[in-house]
Amino acid sequence: MPRTRTDSAGEAGADLHLALPPTGPRRAAVASALREAVRTGRLAPGTRLPPYRSLAADLGVARNTVADAYAELVAEGWLTARQGSGTRVAERAAAKAPRVPKKAGPSRPGRPAHDLRQGQPDATSFPRAAWTASVRRALSAAPHDAFGPPDPRGRPELRQALAGYLARARGVCASPEQIVVCAGVAHGLRLLFGGGVLTGPLAVEAYGLPFHRGILTDAGVRTLPLELDEHGARTDLLATRPETSGRRGARAVLLTPAHQFPTGGPLHAPRRAAAVDWARARGGVVLEDDYDGEFRYDREPVGAVQGLDPDHVVLLGSVSKSLSPAVRLGWMVLPERLVDGVLAAKGLREAWTGVTDQLALADFLTSGQYDRHVRRMRQRYRARRDRLVTALAAHAPHIEVTGIAAGLHAVLRLPPGTETATVDAARRLGLALDGLADFRHPDSRQPHRDGLVVGHATPPEHRYRAALDALCRALPGPEGGRPGHPPARALDHTGLST
Amino acid sequence: MPRTRTDSAGEAGADLHLALPPTGPRRAAVASALREAVRTGRLAPGTRLPPYRSLAADLGVARNTVADAYAELVAEGWLTARQGSGTRVAERAAAKAPRVPKKAGPSRPGRPAHDLRQGQPDATSFPRAAWTASVRRALSAAPHDAFGPPDPRGRPELRQALAGYLARARGVCASPEQIVVCAGVAHGLRLLFGGGVLTGPLAVEAYGLPFHRGILTDAGVRTLPLELDEHGARTDLLATRPETSGRRGARAVLLTPAHQFPTGGPLHAPRRAAAVDWARARGGVVLEDDYDGEFRYDREPVGAVQGLDPDHVVLLGSVSKSLSPAVRLGWMVLPERLVDGVLAAKGLREAWTGVTDQLALADFLTSGQYDRHVRRMRQRYRARRDRLVTALAAHAPHIEVTGIAAGLHAVLRLPPGTETATVDAARRLGLALDGLADFRHPDSRQPHRDGLVVGHATPPEHRYRAALDALCRALPGPEGGRPGHPPARALDHTGLST
Repeated sequence: MPRTRTDSAGEAGADLHLALPPTGPRRAAVASALREAVRTGRLAPGTRLPPYRSLAADLGVARNTVADAYAELVAEGWLTARQGSGTRVAERAAAKAPRVPKKAGPSRPGRPAHDLRQGQPDATSFPRAAWTASVRRALSAAPHDAFGPPDPRGRPELRQALAGYLARARGVCASPEQIVVCAGVAHGLRLLFGGGVLTGPLAVEAYGLPFHRGILTDAGVRTLPLELDEHGARTDLLATRPETSGRRGARAVLLTPAHQFPTGGPLHAPRRAAAVDWARARGGVVLEDDYDGEFRYDREPVGAVQGLDPDHVVLLGSVSKSLSPAVRLGWMVLPERLVDGVLAAKGLREAWTGVTDQLALADFLTSGQYDRHVRRMRQRYRARRDRLVTALAAHAPHIEVTGIAAGLHAVLRLPPGTETATVDAARRLGLALDGLADFRHPDSRQPHRDGLVVGHATPPEHRYRAALDALCRALPGPEGGRPGHPPARALDHTGLST
Repeated sequence: MPRTRTDSAGEAGADLHLALPPTGPRRAAVASALREAVRTGRLAPGTRLPPYRSLAADLGVARNTVADAYAELVAEGWLTARQGSGTRVAERAAAKAPRVPKKAGPSRPGRPAHDLRQGQPDATSFPRAAWTASVRRALSAAPHDAFGPPDPRGRPELRQALAGYLARARGVCASPEQIVVCAGVAHGLRLLFGGGVLTGPLAVEAYGLPFHRGILTDAGVRTLPLELDEHGARTDLLATRPETSGRRGARAVLLTPAHQFPTGGPLHAPRRAAAVDWARARGGVVLEDDYDGEFRYDREPVGAVQGLDPDHVVLLGSVSKSLSPAVRLGWMVLPERLVDGVLAAKGLREAWTGVTDQLALADFLTSGQYDRHVRRMRQRYRARRDRLVTALAAHAPHIEVTGIAAGLHAVLRLPPGTETATVDAARRLGLALDGLADFRHPDSRQPHRDGLVVGHATPPEHRYRAALDALCRALPGPEGGRPGHPPARALDHTGLST
């Protein structure tokens, strides 16, 4: 029979690892081990030590032995003991501070003074209180099995809530059984291609996220750029080009139909139909990255392509832009025939998405908090978009602003040959943003049009004015003048810089 | 200038996607689109529709147009309108229910009546209230940047808290800069080997998790089994065998030093030293899977090997067993020279671990709740371990129980040749558990000893007795009799089955 400890189950002691020599006086051994732990910095100043009883039980020594050792170290100044706050490592105790490496890993670029990079919602507007309330409600209502080995599909509560929300808000047609939860759109692409559910080559838009192209390249998938025009991606060409219609050609296309990323227009109806018709005829799929389907301002809502043909469209979505990129939750709405493959790629157990976030999002959706938050942010971002347009009309009327009917960014068209110099000028003014060329597919034969991608959602509210100011200063003048030096008078005139 | 909407920012409307034809009477178009959405099941019974004003603004029609369309559908019985709860889809409305596929994906095995599979903490004991309190405190105290693009290292609050906790409780020596947060131990292995930070071959214990070996195989890493004896893995052989000492031999070894998984003993001190000496001499690393370092019962605490040589040990840990496998949080404590490589493997941004869990765990650790929970669970699991030992002593005294000084499982040694039949007998009794052979490395030349791996932490408290009862019934008799049929009298005699 195993020996049973005598410390009580209710004791809220902290674990403390101490290695004692097998023989010799116990009190001296405990004191010496403690001293060593404090001296080397393993026990940081302020750390609370466990109660005598717990440590004694852990070490297999008498309670008084530990009490005496503590008292010895208090007397020596290594520890402090105060009524009510227990015994702690003294603040001045660490003769040798814990090692702090000189270099904190790969150099991460310092934060710019102004940040208009795309793809980031305003971090100050995360709905902390409402999210916390959802966590509280969801954790208290969850069945016990929520804390057992997790299902790679995702929690049923979340899949049910997503099916309802996506049907209502995005025109998606799906049962919860077709939804698989993931850690974001990039994770979805990894599962589809890295997991062998789909194989390359893959047609993609001529401008898109380099990050997504990188994931595909890592998975050994060749991407084929599809030109863009004023109606969106040239899906009408899919059925005629050899590389997307031949026997070994692409059978999947990745699109951003709600709001082309980054150039900004919606995919027009005949192009949507062409994409779906092609996928159907090829026995392939349209991958619909619905990355900011919720943020539309002026134009009529555009439903998801998925609703046109749920058997030939994979919809990928996440809360990265609607809530925060730090909440790692996304979803895939899959044709039924692909569900098993995606689950096999995930593995027997969910290894990625935590139960707290999943249950909280389910509650956030069903309680109406998600709609409320999206609507609030839509108002805020629209106001920012309007301020951007106003500022440009006043200070750079020669710069065309496009892609502003929806989304968290706009595209500014620049005079030919000025893009790189403008991004550099912005950087010198402490303003981070991306040139359109950064998103261009390296194999695209479409002529490049110079432009800037301006993420107007990124800065906190109180820094937005200064960011716009910096942007206007960085733009090239009407005669293609050197960027970075517009006449100061122009800014003062409208009061934008005051 | 973009048109500005007239709906107020404070309006808490829900988004509803409806596609209207471009021309024709608006009221009829809205009514028809709504009817279609309800009829096809896209809008589920009970779904709340947005207020007139919101939908009118979304569709670009007059408010009364929407109000009239709603009224029309209420009159037709598709919708119901009730004071205070708005307009909803009628419960009986869905003529055609949403498609429910006949098959719910890959067939997941039904839940067994009794579950003694290893590696799972009791799901009913997740500390919901304390975790919720940590979420609340942490989210309200977090700086705004916590909700911006996340750092692949993990939140600084969590890395600081882990450094303190692991130093105190596990004897780990690390600064927060050496810690990288991940989604679990398996994710850590994927980053190290899939990300090219380390390369194979890799020495592993002759018995271990098939899941981990699978990840390594997928990453193209060959694993070399290392025999086990009563002192743990034969790390003393690493320096002499050609496959772990030759020029192209392994430079890394994966160990479970606190409690060998699954056979159950700690790695003895000379073997710990041998592993570290070997790694040092080879310029390699020991991968220390500290999978249940916190759950020790009788024996002296065994600190982490990492403390012996932080420059040649990677410690991998997670909350899968201490909290729940549904909380996807793990950590790697890395030699400084490996940190950059692991971060490069993760990518520029954290794509996996959510901020809520990270901040909550940091608070859970620093507030002492983690220690409290671990101590409580340790008491509970020790009591279960004792009940297992007692039941076996009474009903199967010929069965040796090993590996019980720590952890969430025990190993029962079986008479030679009875393992498979015993697992089958258990299955027929509705009892799920694993035979020791399931964990054996396929290339191991060590003779197999029949055994069962019994996860005593898995069942909820009220089902544990019945699970033990089923286990005793499934075990082979003292004369190697057919398992599954011990004399019923033996059980009745002690009252275990009453």
